[in-house]
Amino acid sequence: MHINPRLQPPGGEELLAWLRHYRLAWLGGDLVAGVVTAIMIIPQSMAYAMLAGLPVQIGLYASLLPLIGYALFGTSMSMSVGPVAVTALMTAALLAPLASIGSEHYLQLAIWLALLSGVMLFVLGLLRMGFLANFLSHPVISGFISGASILIMFSQLPHLFGLASLPSSPAQLLAAWTPVNSLVLGMGLVALAWLLYARSRLAGHLQRFGIGASAARLLARLAPILVVLLGLLLTIVGDLGARGVPVVGSLPAGLPSLVWSSPDLSTLQALLLPAALISLVSFVESVSIAQSLARRKRQSIDPDRELLALGTANVGSALTGGFAVCGGFSRSGVNVEAGANTPLAGVVSALVIGLILLTIAPLFAWLPLVVLAVVILVAVVPLIDTAALRRAWRYDRREGLTLAGTAAGVLVLGIEGGIVLGVGLSIVTQLWRGSRPHVAIVGRVPGTHYFRNTQRHLVETEPQLLAIRIDENIFFANTKAIERSILQALRDYPDTRELLLILSAVNHIDSTGLDMLLELSLGLNERDIQIHLAEVKGPVMDQLEQTDWIREQVAEIFPSTHIAFNTLSGFKRPLSEADAEHTPKTA
Amino acid sequence: MHINPRLQPPGGEELLAWLRHYRLAWLGGDLVAGVVTAIMIIPQSMAYAMLAGLPVQIGLYASLLPLIGYALFGTSMSMSVGPVAVTALMTAALLAPLASIGSEHYLQLAIWLALLSGVMLFVLGLLRMGFLANFLSHPVISGFISGASILIMFSQLPHLFGLASLPSSPAQLLAAWTPVNSLVLGMGLVALAWLLYARSRLAGHLQRFGIGASAARLLARLAPILVVLLGLLLTIVGDLGARGVPVVGSLPAGLPSLVWSSPDLSTLQALLLPAALISLVSFVESVSIAQSLARRKRQSIDPDRELLALGTANVGSALTGGFAVCGGFSRSGVNVEAGANTPLAGVVSALVIGLILLTIAPLFAWLPLVVLAVVILVAVVPLIDTAALRRAWRYDRREGLTLAGTAAGVLVLGIEGGIVLGVGLSIVTQLWRGSRPHVAIVGRVPGTHYFRNTQRHLVETEPQLLAIRIDENIFFANTKAIERSILQALRDYPDTRELLLILSAVNHIDSTGLDMLLELSLGLNERDIQIHLAEVKGPVMDQLEQTDWIREQVAEIFPSTHIAFNTLSGFKRPLSEADAEHTPKTA
Repeated sequence: MHINPRLQPPGGEELLAWLRHYRLAWLGGDLVAGVVTAIMIIPQSMAYAMLAGLPVQIGLYASLLPLIGYALFGTSMSMSVGPVAVTALMTAALLAPLASIGSEHYLQLAIWLALLSGVMLFVLGLLRMGFLANFLSHPVISGFISGASILIMFSQLPHLFGLASLPSSPAQLLAAWTPVNSLVLGMGLVALAWLLYARSRLAGHLQRFGIGASAARLLARLAPILVVLLGLLLTIVGDLGARGVPVVGSLPAGLPSLVWSSPDLSTLQALLLPAALISLVSFVESVSIAQSLARRKRQSIDPDRELLALGTANVGSALTGGFAVCGGFSRSGVNVEAGANTPLAGVVSALVIGLILLTIAPLFAWLPLVVLAVVILVAVVPLIDTAALRRAWRYDRREGLTLAGTAAGVLVLGIEGGIVLGVGLSIVTQLWRGSRPHVAIVGRVPGTHYFRNTQRHLVETEPQLLAIRIDENIFFANTKAIERSILQALRDYPDTRELLLILSAVNHIDSTGLDMLLELSLGLNERDIQIHLAEVKGPVMDQLEQTDWIREQVAEIFPSTHIAFNTLSGFKRPLSEADAEHTPKTA
Repeated sequence: MHINPRLQPPGGEELLAWLRHYRLAWLGGDLVAGVVTAIMIIPQSMAYAMLAGLPVQIGLYASLLPLIGYALFGTSMSMSVGPVAVTALMTAALLAPLASIGSEHYLQLAIWLALLSGVMLFVLGLLRMGFLANFLSHPVISGFISGASILIMFSQLPHLFGLASLPSSPAQLLAAWTPVNSLVLGMGLVALAWLLYARSRLAGHLQRFGIGASAARLLARLAPILVVLLGLLLTIVGDLGARGVPVVGSLPAGLPSLVWSSPDLSTLQALLLPAALISLVSFVESVSIAQSLARRKRQSIDPDRELLALGTANVGSALTGGFAVCGGFSRSGVNVEAGANTPLAGVVSALVIGLILLTIAPLFAWLPLVVLAVVILVAVVPLIDTAALRRAWRYDRREGLTLAGTAAGVLVLGIEGGIVLGVGLSIVTQLWRGSRPHVAIVGRVPGTHYFRNTQRHLVETEPQLLAIRIDENIFFANTKAIERSILQALRDYPDTRELLLILSAVNHIDSTGLDMLLELSLGLNERDIQIHLAEVKGPVMDQLEQTDWIREQVAEIFPSTHIAFNTLSGFKRPLSEADAEHTPKTA
């Protein structure tokens, strides 16, 4: 068998293939991308730690081993793994009932959550259960991310106003308002304006100054670091921390130490569902990012290997006191644009961040929280995907409702409630669709082999022969509807003596469906109507062959409707083949 | 349009059609059936009231208005409605957490449960939501009934031993054993032997004494009343009640009075889920009994009208202080055998039971409880349907597991848990099946119009044309698998330039599937592979027509694979039509 090498994943089946076959030509890109991505993810990682209710350095700790762990097993050549907004929010939301934010216990739970989720992902990978993620439909994923992003936006409003928490009314807000709040809000709005400008226009303006297009795009994506530096400068020079502007506070120097502490059994139990949910969302997000990156470069992704890689990354994060990590969209985008060729870029990023931790990290203690809040806001607002809602709604209203329902579920019922509601909605939608099968009475298009719906096309029928095409799998949710359609058709064609069921679109018949067919046949036999089948698919036939129904109740099984028609009409008419092209365009 | 009158329901669309068109010829059968059924259901109704944890007269009260209420709306001409084993068990199991059995409040809750369930059923009927019951697959229903029957069996063991509750160990049982227990057990075993004999052999033996076959069968089914009479006689003559044999105790004379008391809001809330579950099970059981009865007489059933009828029956039961009712299998069987022609037989039964209540009912106070327990045991043991388990297992192991899982769920998790588990299992099974789609590479059967799987048949293919038939709806659970199959096929046939997707078995594409097709096309376009479609079904085409995918990514859409092959092969070859019969038997 000939294998097209362009379709092979660069990593292939072997582990660390990118490293074993490393070419010097890739090194430059990997080094630059590693440094650039590190600069970009420093403020982001700290911001997402804050979002998760953790000290900001935890975000940096979670940006070391995960990048190396992913490089061991990952099949994406350019995805960057680390703290991301949605899993940070999930960490905060899922741990809130178990410990108070800011406590030592809360931090410990966050670490264990990453550990447990990492182990789960790794085990799922060993069991090759990547397919589990398929049960999240796109509307559910999109609705979940949009809902979570709205939650994140609201969670950052207090930081934007320089308050500990949002007041319950505008009047209370005004009463508590101080000049410091105005200062914080002013800094926030300026930073927001700069970041929004950087996102939309900066690259274009830089190009006018003679900077190349891709370098300009990269510089624009590094805009947050400028906000961080300016924020630091302003706080230190103006001694804003002492004047009441909320800042990060203490930040220890040095690398985190490798730690291991086993959670007790009751804590493990309490963390099981949260870890499962985080694992699911991390996996689905990472794989979809990895796949979209791979497609651009004609590489391919192995979902089961991705499970192993994500699992290792999360265990690595936990080992250095970090929290849950997953593939990030914007950080991966920067990585690609900066020229990453292999996961070596990630390893370089980890080294750069380690270096920062060893040197200038304590400076971040002066960083105003409002800067981190603005970094989060700018990152999550584009995730609120109203275009996806419009598209789903246009294509199928029920799918639009599933998307909107999932988003509303996240907002009203919370993270778990939203996911459960979304999955429930998409399953019910699917069953509902299957429960309203299309059942067509068909006839022959004159002069051809083709058989079409009598209600859509001008076709020939035979008085004693009723041919019915069932356009759906026959299963519990639609057996009653199919039985009703067939009985109605027999009422409309009372001279029927031969009933031909065309099963070309039936890929499966379950036992409820079989019971219905058996009971239907018993009733029809009493009325001297014989049942015949046509175009039974191989797998369906394999299963039916052993049943009493097919042995005792079905008269004949035809390979094609055409042969069935010729046989059951009582004569064989040779058809001219000439004008097959005249048949209608859809079946 | 010609309408076959034999297929019309005798009740037709109009209410009380059976009464408006009543024929004198039906009266004899209805009178006899009414009296015979009443005699049969007197012990059964009392026994099921005991099973539900209620005073035995409540069973009789629940056998009056429901029969008349059902006659108003019902479309089954011979189903008999009243207390049945499974809903009695459900009443006990669902109310146990809310009130202590035997208390005044418990009785009131049972009445409200019937009322609420009746209102729900009636409203569902008005909304024509009978289709909801379709979401219970046959394995789930069968597993539920078997599990509930086993629960019922165990619940009656204390009565069989004359104990208040089952001791926790055999040693404790022996320690507590008294001569009275032996007496009760002896009576129980004799009654059991008699009823089992009556069920299996009595009819045959009666026929030897010259009694006609159908009369003999009827007499055999009335055997329980003999046990009741003998039990009464023995208790009264031997004064067994005073000696410690548990008996019914006091039983008020006279008809129940019409009562109405509205439950408060918090009680209503607590009863909502129990009422919904009882409604679901009642409806599914009643409709399946009604349909199997109707099939024998070539009548038909309207599920929405059945909802109205069952709703009225339950409200009627509640109005006279009765508990939840539903169509019963054995009572309906007796009704049919005794010659019931219309629901008038039910009305006659209600009158007879009313007469009994007015006259001899207080005598039942002496009835030993063990007699009722035996009546229950003999009624439920045949409901444990191991044959259904074997059949489901043989047809599809997953369906066998669903059935066994539902039964085990009822035993381990209880009524609600069992139903939820069963529905969950059948939905997961269905999704699982859809997530493993059959995708076939097809080629032309030489000299014909037919296209078959290259792996099952000897067929012709074209080097630059790859034709893939997708044998499943394309939806979220299988998009990844379908994409993988297509990419694998392209790897196996690297010379492909035209990819033909044959959608003859695709009845629906959801938005996740559409996203996959779109991304797949983008990747293939880059590799100069064009996508074509064949045999797109009308409803699928209607939905696809508005999408960017079909407008921008799909090259051509062909009405048949044959035409697609001819066009895409670059030449048109006229095929001989002669040996279409030589094609294999399944598609």
